[in-house]
Amino acid sequence: MNTNYYAILMAGGVGSRFWPVSTRSFPKQFHDLLGSGQSLLQHTFSRLSRFIPAENILILTNAKYQDLVLEQLPQIQSDQIVAEPAMRNTAPCILYAALKIRKMNPDACMVVAPSDHWIENEAAFEQDVLQCFETASHSNALCTLGIKPTFPNTGFGYIEYEKGSAGLSKVIQFREKPDFETARQFLQQGNFLWNAGIFAWSVRGIIAAFEQYQPKEYQHFAMGLDVYNTDREAAFIAKNYPLADNISIDYAILEQSDNVLVLPASFDWNDLGTWGSLYDKMDKDANGNAIARGSVLTEDCSNNMIRLPEGKVGVFEGLEDFIVVDNQDVLLVVPKSREQEIKQWVSRVENTFGSDLT
Amino acid sequence: MNTNYYAILMAGGVGSRFWPVSTRSFPKQFHDLLGSGQSLLQHTFSRLSRFIPAENILILTNAKYQDLVLEQLPQIQSDQIVAEPAMRNTAPCILYAALKIRKMNPDACMVVAPSDHWIENEAAFEQDVLQCFETASHSNALCTLGIKPTFPNTGFGYIEYEKGSAGLSKVIQFREKPDFETARQFLQQGNFLWNAGIFAWSVRGIIAAFEQYQPKEYQHFAMGLDVYNTDREAAFIAKNYPLADNISIDYAILEQSDNVLVLPASFDWNDLGTWGSLYDKMDKDANGNAIARGSVLTEDCSNNMIRLPEGKVGVFEGLEDFIVVDNQDVLLVVPKSREQEIKQWVSRVENTFGSDLT
Repeated sequence: MNTNYYAILMAGGVGSRFWPVSTRSFPKQFHDLLGSGQSLLQHTFSRLSRFIPAENILILTNAKYQDLVLEQLPQIQSDQIVAEPAMRNTAPCILYAALKIRKMNPDACMVVAPSDHWIENEAAFEQDVLQCFETASHSNALCTLGIKPTFPNTGFGYIEYEKGSAGLSKVIQFREKPDFETARQFLQQGNFLWNAGIFAWSVRGIIAAFEQYQPKEYQHFAMGLDVYNTDREAAFIAKNYPLADNISIDYAILEQSDNVLVLPASFDWNDLGTWGSLYDKMDKDANGNAIARGSVLTEDCSNNMIRLPEGKVGVFEGLEDFIVVDNQDVLLVVPKSREQEIKQWVSRVENTFGSDLT
Repeated sequence: MNTNYYAILMAGGVGSRFWPVSTRSFPKQFHDLLGSGQSLLQHTFSRLSRFIPAENILILTNAKYQDLVLEQLPQIQSDQIVAEPAMRNTAPCILYAALKIRKMNPDACMVVAPSDHWIENEAAFEQDVLQCFETASHSNALCTLGIKPTFPNTGFGYIEYEKGSAGLSKVIQFREKPDFETARQFLQQGNFLWNAGIFAWSVRGIIAAFEQYQPKEYQHFAMGLDVYNTDREAAFIAKNYPLADNISIDYAILEQSDNVLVLPASFDWNDLGTWGSLYDKMDKDANGNAIARGSVLTEDCSNNMIRLPEGKVGVFEGLEDFIVVDNQDVLLVVPKSREQEIKQWVSRVENTFGSDLT
């Protein structure tokens, strides 16, 4: 395995649309949502370690999830966890991780991988990332993996790239979540991809981009260069990380740079962003019911997503297109068509019953 | 209080239409279904003890529920429990209890009271039973309390009585559960009452009726006259009770005798026979949702009956006319209109997952 290859595994999110399973104390990425026997975090780690030395994989997460990460990934050393003392957006933690990696290996290439997505074909993922590394290793190009859109999804950002090019193509622009009509046009044009938040670049390339487009942010984290990967790092970060701007890598760098490439991914991808997208990935009975867990009997039920505690018996009759999630402490019964409202339910539950269950 | 007054409290049923709350190991009558702070059994006992000496109230139940009864009614002595070693219908246990009571007090009047119904107005119940006792104490008349029907219920038996009479009236006939059209006609005729299984008579009267109409059954239990209320009773019953006919008091006696009277009850009555009848008794929110228990939030929900474990949070959206019962081990979600099928669900769950949950 190429020891210049590094990964940062983004594992700091909360995934509130998967409430009540995903909660602030035990977020989505630590769950085995698909019943595969591994959490999404473990899946992502094992996918990356196919071609990246395990000791070169850093886990970026909130300080409060450190123990969870170590429990689920016993093969890593605690210094592979890059703990954010405060919730910031993606730019600060990527810059911070890039500076740490460059200090270990100035020739490093790194892939930024969300920990809460689903990728079935791991070999295809490996191939795509390696193709990006190939390019990134001898240039400052910032590569992204774009997902070929299958329908006019209004919940994703889009990447427009130069028509007619094959393989890694020059990005024309990043587009925020569009309305339905715009999304439809993107699909018709044929040169738009979904932005999956998967990036690959050299540490040289991304740090140079920060110096150019976010000089203040760069300075802020460059102050710590001496202490990174030492005993004094934690104190520095505890003090300075919360002062960083709350800004996404897309907005801070990718939308500014004219050196961004995109590779249409060759693998199936599911962001597992909502219960509905999980439903899409699951096995279903003859009536389209997906039973994620539990001992379930149904009658006149169709197209439901049902998840009960292990071993709990469920009896359902006359239910159509519902999400039913029973998490011992909480029972959620919501139409699939209103899954986007689950985020609001989380707030409402918090306001009514306190934050223990959210 | 009149020491000639006795009661037998029928507490041997299973109430499978209230599954998963009501189970064979913890049946309906031991639950506080209405959230009143007392189980149905406790309610019935306290209603009876308004006018019947507590020590004169016998609890007829299956042997396996003896501990549950003693736990819920700590004020009784264990010899007030008449334990059926096997499930038989109502005739054998009523005869057996009547013989025991006669041996204590040959002048006794006894009321037979189901333990799993709901009666709001306890004073009216007392008045009605006392009126029956008044008549029964100086005759062999078998009195029943009939409920004025409010709609053509096809789930109850009906009692036809002589038109134009007031108070305790002569019964013309007992009618088994009718079809809807027949039930409608009963209501139009105006002299039909629901049979609620509440009877009042003298022990002389009921035993005489058994001698006349069920001489074999009478002989069977009369063999034990010497041992009832002694140390040797248990052995006798363990051996002989299972040999008794499996027959109801209605069929064995009331449909045979021409000495049956009925008093239209002056109290509101609910048999709590199904989740739907429980729903009818419960407080509802502006949209007709009845929350039996749990910390529940709803949106676009109407006319549901929801019962969760104490303190469990429930979030419901877009649900109409459903019964939702979560009992920790089982989650039941069934349309109110199909509540009669719950009995079949119990069998199906038993066949699929075993009898632990039924």
